[in-house]
Amino acid sequence: MLSSIFTKFLLKLVFSTLVKAIVSVSSDDGDEDELLPVPDLPDKGDPLTGDPEADISPVTEEMFSSWALFIMLSLLIFALWSSYYLAQKRIRAVHETVLSIFYGMVVGLILRMTPGHYIQSSVTFNSSYFFNILLPPIILNSGYELNQVNFFNNMLSILTFAIPGTFISACVLGIILFIWTSLGLESVNISFVDAMSVGATLSATDPVTILSIFNAYKVDPKLYTIIFGESLLNDAISIVMFETCQKFRGQPATLSSIFEGVGLFMMTFSISLVIGVAIGILVALLLKHTDIRRYPQIESCIILLIAYQSYFFSNGCHMSGIVSLLFCGITLKHYAYYNMSRRTQLTIKYIFQLLARLSENFIFIYLGLELFTEVQLVYKPLLIIVTALSICIARWCAVFPLSRFVNWLYRVKAQRSSNITLGNNVVIPEEIPYNYQVMTFWAGLRGAVGVALALGIQGEFKFTLLATVLVVVVLTVIIFGGTTAGMLEVLNIKTGCIDENDDSDDEFDIEAATTASRFNQELGQYRASSARKPYSDSNRDFTAEDTFLHDANNFINDTNGEISLDASPIPAMANDNLSSPNVNNHSSTPEGRNVKESMGTLFRSDSQWFQNFDENVLKPVFLDSNPQYPNNDNNGTESQSPSGFDSRQK
Amino acid sequence: MLSSIFTKFLLKLVFSTLVKAIVSVSSDDGDEDELLPVPDLPDKGDPLTGDPEADISPVTEEMFSSWALFIMLSLLIFALWSSYYLAQKRIRAVHETVLSIFYGMVVGLILRMTPGHYIQSSVTFNSSYFFNILLPPIILNSGYELNQVNFFNNMLSILTFAIPGTFISACVLGIILFIWTSLGLESVNISFVDAMSVGATLSATDPVTILSIFNAYKVDPKLYTIIFGESLLNDAISIVMFETCQKFRGQPATLSSIFEGVGLFMMTFSISLVIGVAIGILVALLLKHTDIRRYPQIESCIILLIAYQSYFFSNGCHMSGIVSLLFCGITLKHYAYYNMSRRTQLTIKYIFQLLARLSENFIFIYLGLELFTEVQLVYKPLLIIVTALSICIARWCAVFPLSRFVNWLYRVKAQRSSNITLGNNVVIPEEIPYNYQVMTFWAGLRGAVGVALALGIQGEFKFTLLATVLVVVVLTVIIFGGTTAGMLEVLNIKTGCIDENDDSDDEFDIEAATTASRFNQELGQYRASSARKPYSDSNRDFTAEDTFLHDANNFINDTNGEISLDASPIPAMANDNLSSPNVNNHSSTPEGRNVKESMGTLFRSDSQWFQNFDENVLKPVFLDSNPQYPNNDNNGTESQSPSGFDSRQK
Repeated sequence: MLSSIFTKFLLKLVFSTLVKAIVSVSSDDGDEDELLPVPDLPDKGDPLTGDPEADISPVTEEMFSSWALFIMLSLLIFALWSSYYLAQKRIRAVHETVLSIFYGMVVGLILRMTPGHYIQSSVTFNSSYFFNILLPPIILNSGYELNQVNFFNNMLSILTFAIPGTFISACVLGIILFIWTSLGLESVNISFVDAMSVGATLSATDPVTILSIFNAYKVDPKLYTIIFGESLLNDAISIVMFETCQKFRGQPATLSSIFEGVGLFMMTFSISLVIGVAIGILVALLLKHTDIRRYPQIESCIILLIAYQSYFFSNGCHMSGIVSLLFCGITLKHYAYYNMSRRTQLTIKYIFQLLARLSENFIFIYLGLELFTEVQLVYKPLLIIVTALSICIARWCAVFPLSRFVNWLYRVKAQRSSNITLGNNVVIPEEIPYNYQVMTFWAGLRGAVGVALALGIQGEFKFTLLATVLVVVVLTVIIFGGTTAGMLEVLNIKTGCIDENDDSDDEFDIEAATTASRFNQELGQYRASSARKPYSDSNRDFTAEDTFLHDANNFINDTNGEISLDASPIPAMANDNLSSPNVNNHSSTPEGRNVKESMGTLFRSDSQWFQNFDENVLKPVFLDSNPQYPNNDNNGTESQSPSGFDSRQK
Repeated sequence: MLSSIFTKFLLKLVFSTLVKAIVSVSSDDGDEDELLPVPDLPDKGDPLTGDPEADISPVTEEMFSSWALFIMLSLLIFALWSSYYLAQKRIRAVHETVLSIFYGMVVGLILRMTPGHYIQSSVTFNSSYFFNILLPPIILNSGYELNQVNFFNNMLSILTFAIPGTFISACVLGIILFIWTSLGLESVNISFVDAMSVGATLSATDPVTILSIFNAYKVDPKLYTIIFGESLLNDAISIVMFETCQKFRGQPATLSSIFEGVGLFMMTFSISLVIGVAIGILVALLLKHTDIRRYPQIESCIILLIAYQSYFFSNGCHMSGIVSLLFCGITLKHYAYYNMSRRTQLTIKYIFQLLARLSENFIFIYLGLELFTEVQLVYKPLLIIVTALSICIARWCAVFPLSRFVNWLYRVKAQRSSNITLGNNVVIPEEIPYNYQVMTFWAGLRGAVGVALALGIQGEFKFTLLATVLVVVVLTVIIFGGTTAGMLEVLNIKTGCIDENDDSDDEFDIEAATTASRFNQELGQYRASSARKPYSDSNRDFTAEDTFLHDANNFINDTNGEISLDASPIPAMANDNLSSPNVNNHSSTPEGRNVKESMGTLFRSDSQWFQNFDENVLKPVFLDSNPQYPNNDNNGTESQSPSGFDSRQK
């Protein structure tokens, strides 16, 4: 009851301040000359905002930017609050990102209708802010929180979808658009290179929405990892493709330029990867060979800054900052993490998560705002419909043939291997079953990277193409994002999976109760920590321990075959999937499981040499003082062991 | 050895990349048209950067801003690394902030000499960035980390120095400058209002440098609190004074306008305070009446955002954001803290500290850069010298008379009280002894707030005045900041004080060993945490425990009268001050201590009613479920008890 009253109160508060902001802005409108310039977040490419006249007092400037920032932060708070509300009420049909876009659209509409236009231009999407401030935290956090075991185990599928997949998608989309515009139905006439550019921008899938839904449902780690890895890498790939296209602008497109582009892309990708890994290793060595961990405040600042440097350095060298940052994050977690002080381990984790969360919500609010605050957009309805249909076709062309290719590859290898170990006549399950393929197709919603790239499109039809990309992105987020939960059910995808490789810095998360063997241990910890803090807030601890016990009990229920997320079971679907193993699932029979296990090691055996090399050569060099790792693989608590390449099965 | 090799390596790396950056920039210089616009951090008031032509591709934009950000972050890393190096080598003569300014100047000079000028203009000081991004974290962290007991116990002295002190300082400085410029020696002729504006900008003392030195030396909490409180509040006050001056521009200055200004100021201050406290209480209630603490990620984002909102809301309403943010921070710690989940308590603390640290260093780097990258500055040597001398005179006029006033006030009250309780003929020690007064004078170095305000000065001599303010600020930081450590010794100020009210979320700080009674407890904790994390990096724990034991042993030495900071005793001065109680110190004799105690409660008794009201009425309303506070005042571990108004003595 109280919470709903508070929600209403908050609603009122936010809207009343918003209205005030607008009124204060409109009432100041008399002095047009002084108000014209945009003090903060300026939009460079927009001639309407005009030439900023000098001599605005910083005090006035500050006031304007304060309101712009106030509105943005209010929207963020509002989106986060909705997210809490949705989680609390267990509403999973509507997703946080969809709401963020919606709030952005509402406020964008209000701003559009008010007379003053400097707040409007202040909040317009700016690709420089996007690439330098909003995107890095998300990528860094993804790399840092990445489940390394799953990622490297599914590397083949991820790379197949990410590299040829994005390429196929961009080409199909580019060709369809070029043909459509050549028909001249809407008097939009773009060159082939521009069509390919749009294809590239619309091939970057969004790493945020789908994954937060998957997280909430605890979808099968394999599917999660494939979609996660694909969406992360294809951002980088579509950026590189877009840049390559822009280089060929005005030149005739020849076959050789395609090869040149592919070569350029491969080089960019590998150099960026090397930069990221090198910087991660540098941090590990720095921490190992100095005493900086005695000053955790300085330590955490420096680690954060160096990670960001990998992004800016890479971008400055015309390489892909995203790839560098992603691999820098992975390397940091794989090596540097074990050289940090305990406080820095916690600080870095919390900060990365918080920044990533804020950025994610901010980006979607931004997209919603952009629909109404970018004044020059030219909407061509037919083009938008054609593009929206084309991206589905393009994704179809990428996902299904490539899934077959991956399945075929695994089947050949498995057959060769099973001839030796298990004999013939074994039914080999598919690596990517049909329902996983459909889900991968469905997960192809487009995100903010596409819009940010689209801002860079040049030429006569710049604003037409930008409007098209923007609307298509928002449509995919709303349609695909809104129906993902339903699709999981329809496709009978395994949910409620407990990830044993989960990170275990969660000792302060009330909800953290992940494996049965950790339960007693954690409760012990918890009691110890309550006992040793008599001076701390005992009422707080009491509530928390209650919650903990509550969650833990639920967890014990889980091990009896009943999955309960957030203290009460999710209806139907989660239960179905765990208690009655479904037919599509590849490890349903004991035999199948055996095959799966032997098959799982097929590709992993290729990376066995690296695992050994890592354990015996690299870790002693990069980690502190030749440690003895506690590799207690038997009790399920090895998740913090420095070995990220355990060949264990899920 | 290794660390110095690494330092050199880092040095090389940073400079080689810097040179590369500059080379890459200069080599791109052919296409002047495309390079002219400043993609990021644009400098609005500067006509030289010119009118940004539209149609720069975001990719190019991104590359430019990447290099600008790369340079800034490199400087930050370099400054932080120096800070670590200084701490490690126990060099206390040179301070981190002085080095930050120095690095900024060196890079500013290099950028100035290179042909391309867009990176130069990208890194120019921008008051909007300063006020909206760099300043808030510092203020918020100050409020949050504030020692509430000390702050409220010394409220009278703080307010005296902050409000009339800043006013006196601004007036004296303004009048001297007005008289000097009227002489017309350097053909600078400014109005009285402009002179007063400069006076206001140069009356904001810097809350960063002095306090970090005081922290390192663990200076007597009373002196620390007075200087800290003054420097925080006078930023707010000089901003309000500056804005008030700007409102009177072009009008004849009359006596009534002074009263109007004072009235305006009082109103702004109180409304801002109320906004800050109200928002803090709102957060506490929000946390109390909802279950948001079950989602610590959302919780910490929302708390951070709402705290920022207090700043932007207040600024947007033409109030003082600094005051609001400061009191919002204090209220958050006083009430909301106890309603947060444990994870959020840690997250918020770590994030505030990290952001504040980054902002502090960034600001000083910025100041150093500004000296060379702001191209239009007009340097008038005589004016600079006169201003530098005048700020010393102005500070002298503020500190010494006001200290006498405070001493007189305490003496009168003490006499009245001692007549009743102790009889006559008691020597009453001074509230602010002479050496504390000199130190307060010395602590008057000016900071970045002054420069940010000076950017708002209008009129013909804008750039002359800006140059003057900038040089004076840098001079005071270098001269006063560089000699503070020496002055502490010369003035025989009590150092090495252990702050019993210290925050105790430091369970993960290796250096945290603050009170004797906590030692065993913490070691126990530490061992428990090592024992209960068998899966964690045992080598890490081992080293850490070693360090902890080492520190703890040092700490035991401390209690025997030997103060050792950072594992080895600071020569001479710390020892002297503790083992031989010095004559200036007011609590040296048992009688004096009695008097001090009875006197200490004099002003505190005035706030007794609030303390009772807070405990009995406010806390049950704002804090969670009518808690029983563990007020175990006897064992010295009460520091986390929610009572911030303990009337205990230091």
